[in-house]
This record gives sequence, C-alpha cells and structure tokens, in this order.
Amino acid sequence: MIDKKIALKKHKESNGKIQVVGKVKILKRKDLSVYYTPGVAFVSEEIKKSKELAYEYTNKGNTIIILSDGTRILGLGNIGPEAGLPVMEGKALLFKKYGGVDAIPICISTTDEEEIISFAKHISPSIGGINIEDIESPKSFRILERLEKELDIPVFHDDQYGTAIVCLGALNNALKLAKKNKHAKIIIFGAGSAGYGITRLLCFAGFDNIYVFDSKGVIKRDRKDDMNEFKYNLAKMTNKENNDFDVEEAIINADVLIGVSGQKGYFKKEWIPKMNKKPIIFALTNPNPEIEYNEAVNAGAFIVATGKSNAPNQVNNIMAFPGVMRGLLEVRAKKVSMAMLYDAAMTITKTAQKELKVNKIISSATDEKAMNKLTLEIAGDIGVSAIKDKNARIKISKNEIKKRSEKRINSYVKLEKYI
Amino acid sequence: MIDKKIALKKHKESNGKIQVVGKVKILKRKDLSVYYTPGVAFVSEEIKKSKELAYEYTNKGNTIIILSDGTRILGLGNIGPEAGLPVMEGKALLFKKYGGVDAIPICISTTDEEEIISFAKHISPSIGGINIEDIESPKSFRILERLEKELDIPVFHDDQYGTAIVCLGALNNALKLAKKNKHAKIIIFGAGSAGYGITRLLCFAGFDNIYVFDSKGVIKRDRKDDMNEFKYNLAKMTNKENNDFDVEEAIINADVLIGVSGQKGYFKKEWIPKMNKKPIIFALTNPNPEIEYNEAVNAGAFIVATGKSNAPNQVNNIMAFPGVMRGLLEVRAKKVSMAMLYDAAMTITKTAQKELKVNKIISSATDEKAMNKLTLEIAGDIGVSAIKDKNARIKISKNEIKKRSEKRINSYVKLEKYI
Repeated sequence: MIDKKIALKKHKESNGKIQVVGKVKILKRKDLSVYYTPGVAFVSEEIKKSKELAYEYTNKGNTIIILSDGTRILGLGNIGPEAGLPVMEGKALLFKKYGGVDAIPICISTTDEEEIISFAKHISPSIGGINIEDIESPKSFRILERLEKELDIPVFHDDQYGTAIVCLGALNNALKLAKKNKHAKIIIFGAGSAGYGITRLLCFAGFDNIYVFDSKGVIKRDRKDDMNEFKYNLAKMTNKENNDFDVEEAIINADVLIGVSGQKGYFKKEWIPKMNKKPIIFALTNPNPEIEYNEAVNAGAFIVATGKSNAPNQVNNIMAFPGVMRGLLEVRAKKVSMAMLYDAAMTITKTAQKELKVNKIISSATDEKAMNKLTLEIAGDIGVSAIKDKNARIKISKNEIKKRSEKRINSYVKLEKYI
Repeated sequence: MIDKKIALKKHKESNGKIQVVGKVKILKRKDLSVYYTPGVAFVSEEIKKSKELAYEYTNKGNTIIILSDGTRILGLGNIGPEAGLPVMEGKALLFKKYGGVDAIPICISTTDEEEIISFAKHISPSIGGINIEDIESPKSFRILERLEKELDIPVFHDDQYGTAIVCLGALNNALKLAKKNKHAKIIIFGAGSAGYGITRLLCFAGFDNIYVFDSKGVIKRDRKDDMNEFKYNLAKMTNKENNDFDVEEAIINADVLIGVSGQKGYFKKEWIPKMNKKPIIFALTNPNPEIEYNEAVNAGAFIVATGKSNAPNQVNNIMAFPGVMRGLLEVRAKKVSMAMLYDAAMTITKTAQKELKVNKIISSATDEKAMNKLTLEIAGDIGVSAIKDKNARIKISKNEIKKRSEKRINSYVKLEKYI
C-alpha cells in the first residue's frame, strides 16, 4: 500500500507532474526567426488558406484535453476542480508515457452542462481530441452525446468507453474458455458511466441476454423510480421480458456477473453456486472489488477478473485508452463510433489468445512490453476502423499507424530519461 | 530574411513546436501508484480541504494559457483560431525557454467578448496566470478589465503591458541622456493595444505632456469621430489643452515620437529637425518601423529605437514577458497592477544604466546572457512589487524569487539538449 505521506511528499517535491516543453530546440537567433516572428507568419498564412493544415504545421493533431468538472473524481465524489487536478495530471502522464499523446489536464470551474459543452467547443480548434474524465453521470452522457454530434474531433469518455473496451475484450475470452456464446445471461451491476458503456458495447457486440441493476433494482422499461433517458436506453437494450426480479432471483442461472457498482463486497459468495455452470465473475470496482479474486474462485467461479494488479485477470483501462487515443490521433479522426470501440475490444481479445487460460484471459497490465505491443495493435486497429467508418481525415495502413505510433512513444521513452 | 519554404519545412518536420511531458519519471509500477491511483487520491483529498494547496501539489502554479481568438494575429489580422496556433505555440516555446513557464497555446472558436471571458474564468482553477495575446482592441481591453476584476490569478496582456514595460524602460534612459524630464512633450502614434498600454504606463509614471494620434487624428476629450470608452480614457489622461492640431503641428517642439502605428515609413525625416533639441524617436512597428534607424539618425535624431534586431536599441517584448510572468508565478500573484508594471520597467531602465549611451539605452535582446540576467532581475522585482501591493499569495525575498526562477529556467536549459 502507498501511504499518504509518500504520495504528498512526492507530489510536493516535484510541484506537480507534467510540464510543457519544446518539440524543437531554440539554440540560435535564427531558430527564433523560423519558429517565431517573422517566419511563423508564413505558416499562419498557409493555415489560414486551409485550417486542416493545422494538423501538419502545429501540434494540434497530437494534443488532447482531459476535461473534468471535478464532480466525480475517482471514488471521492464532487471535490471541486482544484482537487481534481492531480488526478488529471496523472492521467496526462499516462497518456504521454504509454500513448505518446500530449494531454492537457483541465478542471473547470463550472458544473453546468451547457457551459461544459461550450467550453469544449470553444477550445476545439486547438486540439485533436477530447478525453472526458470524472464528470458525474448522467450529465457526462449528455455532454458526450452533444460533443459527438457537434464537434469534428473524437471525444473519448474513458470512464465509459475505456472500461467497456477492456471488459468486452476480456469477456470474449472468458466465454470462449467456458464455451458460451452471445446468448449468455449477463447481469451488470451499476448503471453509471462504466455500466452504461459496458452495456452499450456488449449490446452492439450482439449480446442479447443482459440485465442491468442499479441501486433501485433491475432496470426495466416501465420502471418509474429513478429513471432518466439513459436508463431508459438501457431498458430498451436489455431485460427483454421486462422482468421485475431482484438480485437474488436474477443471479440464478446467470452466466456472467459484471460488477461496476462502486460497492466493495457487493457480490456474495453464496451467489456463485446458484449461477449457471462455469460462472464468470468480473468484479471491477476499484480499488476494492465486489468480491475478492480468491473468494470468488473458492466459491466455485470458473473465471474471475478484478481491477487489482495483484490477482490474475486485471481489467484496467490503461490497456485501452493510450492505444485508442494514439490511433485516433494518427488518422486524425473526426469521431469515435461503437464499431471502432468494438474493434479495439477485439484487439484485446485476440492479443490474449496466444496463451489463453482461465487465469490469463487478458494480457497483463503490469507487463510493460506486452502493454506496449497491445497499445500499438489497438492504435493500428482503431485507426483502420476509423478509416473504414469514414471517420478519419487521412488514410494510412495499419502498419504505418503502428510505425508512427511507435516513433511517438519511443521519442518520449528516450526523453524521459533526462527528466 | 527567413524564407517561406524554410519556415514551412521546419514546422512540418517537427509537426508543431511544443509538447506535454512529465516532471517526474514513471519507471516502476510503484511510481504509478504514487503519482496515479491509489496514491493520488490522498493528494486530491488534501486539496479538497484547501484549494490553495493546488499550488503545492500540482503544476497549476507554473501553468498559464496563451489565449487568443485569432482576430489580430501578428500583422495578419483576423485569420481564425487554427491559423493563430503556430504563433501561440511559438510564444509558448519562448515562455518556457526564457521564463521557465509552462504555457498552453489556446486559440478559441469564438470571438464573442462574453464567451471569451467565460472561457478564461472556467479554465482558471487549472492555471496560475493568463497571457492575453493577439485579440483585437478594444475588445481585448474590455476582456482584460473584466478578468482583472473577476479572477484571482494575474492576467497579462503582452501586446499592451509587455510593450509598455519595455518602452518605458528604454525611454527613461533616452530622456536621461537627453537631460529631459517627465514634462517632455511626447507624441504617441497608434491607439491600439500597444499605444493604449504605453500611454497608461507613461501617465502612471508621471509623464504629463502626452498626445496620442490614431488614424482619425489627435485624441481629445470632445472628439466625436471613432471614440470609445478607452479612447476617452486616453483623452482624459493626455492632451490637457484639448488641442486639435494635426500631426505636422504636433511634432513641432516635440521631445519624443513613439510609433506603434502599424504603418511602415509613417514618420517623415523632415519632422525630426522640427522637434525640440535632442529628438528621441521610438519607431516600434514590426517588422518595418515608422522610420529606419539610420534614416532617423541621419535626419538629426539624438536617440533612435526600433523593433529591429540589426540596429541598436531594439525594443522587444521578449525582454519583459518571460521575467514578468516568472515573477508573478513565483509569488503566486493574484493580480497585475500598474505599480508592478512600472517596477518591471524600472528594472529594465536600471539594468541598462551600467553602460548607458545613445546607442545602448536598453540591454541587447540578442545577448542571451544579458537577457537571462535581466529576466531574473525583472522576476525578482515584480515579485517583490506584487508582495508590496498585497497581490501575492506568498512572501519571499527578491533573492529567493531569483533563485527559484533560475532553477526553473536552468532545468529546461538542461532538458532542451535532449529534445
């Protein structure tokens, strides 16, 4: 365990975790006149003729913002924009280290939906993508929907999409080992960002036997209590029989339980024997899962995944977001579609199939080399997927995407030594 | 001269000029758990208790935005946000290289005054200061006034304040050599950002015999043509006799002409003999001044300054903005006051007095060592000035400010080698 003292000391020592530096050196007077006045005026005039040239002559195409309003920071809730900053700086560090992406942490002083949307739209000429982070749902869903419609740069909602990609990536392999198919009965616990994203992506993938529970019970079309347009979306996609069962009934003969409930210990070990044979348990709440890995295995689970790094089958967003954003930026994507997210998930699935077993349904997030390889594969695949979906500004091959991605990432690996 | 081909080629090669990197290394798994989850949660919780701690634990206190709406980029006019990006990236590079400041170039998609103000206010929790850049006047003045009132971080308008600081810094020395005082008759040509800033600061400094000309003639209290609240401000500060003279009359017995008109060759050499003895000419329009250095000297000017690096007495903002912002950030300033700008100008004045002569009224902007020294002096002096003005969050000595500033700047000098 990391103790508080060390975390505070380390953050204070470095006075923050990221900085802005050059991509070029200014060593002589002449460098200034090329990169600043008067030379830069020629560049501005070119971009004035075609604003798409900003992707060539500026860092727009490799820059994203990590945008939060501080309302749902980690498990800490609404702690305000300043308190959200260290988390966004950390995320920016991960984007750079693992994805070669220049990410600017921005925690804003408004929690108003329209103002957040305006903010993102206003900053959009300067950036190549947006990562929405730690904004409370369902507001985050509405913001995402609007920005997806109104902007021509990709908007990634990691809490939703990132989790969904990694979860589907691992689930495919778990079902393969259990010899189950897309009619498997899946219960999803939690209808926040992660639950919403996972359900959407699983439905897109063709899973047709899903039930979602939130704190008020199972989500169904005619439920009145605590519904909103997004829960109604979930109701339409899931629970075809409009069942009104409680959790204890729902888990009977279930094939898969997916926990994104935020509630430690929510899954009882007694549930597992009541499930269908070869039960699959994804207890993904961090840092404390709905059930511990060993407890679930001992209760008879066939495959167990958690968010923890000290147990097998760690499901962690870090497998997805660096590669996804890298690929989106390489092809100068305009949008992220469900098909693109699906393709990224399939990359995770396939990558792990080289040595597939019940305690290795997904590549190891702690194996840096494997992660780097996976990131490049995802970048290549989601880039190609964007091109196929007509969501890309440029058409390049998967190999070219991987090559360019690798160059970006390696250039930081080299520079990091001197920081 | 820099040709277009080289400027475009160099910008394309590097695909932009700045990037976001770590201030810390992520080498082991444990680093991640200190700088990201779970360790970062402790830091967020601390800042939640007191948001001022963001200055300790994050990079907020060394981060600024360079904010433009693309309406007045260099001399190119309203060319839009994307086309403004290369200029803002170049400026960010200068902020880092010469001031150790982490500057984020932001060109936004709105030119609406209220929306620009909202944007700046919304991003303010994430940053320690704002540099307003290349926004058309008088909108830029209104934005600045509002942000100065409504934010608790310093807002610097380089086009206005930067130019004013350097101009006053040099002017003090020119007048000293000419043995003239604050009653010198000064004609300022141009009432845009630079002209407005210079006039305000000169008046604050006690100069009491100033006339300002814009494209419609001399500015006076009862002029009806093309006036706005800011020109009315100028009218109140200058032209005490409410004179209605034209330029040809105004220059008779003038002591100083200051050109920030944007018009190449605007000053006629015939004017100079009509001025008071020991005429002082500041022809500051870039890249082509109101009169060339040699032409003015040959016509009898006692002291001439321009924005050009290949003539003596170059007046260039780069002497001011890195040090000013460095000092403001070191003391975690809340505001920039006229007194603080004045103190920065006095630093420039004094620094040049070690070897004062008519062709050396200001330190040389091309002498890197001299510039670095000047930057540290300005940082120290404006920091102390902020403390004196009760505009600083922390109280440290001038020496401490200089020491910390030097450390920041040197750390980039070291890193730049490996970029």
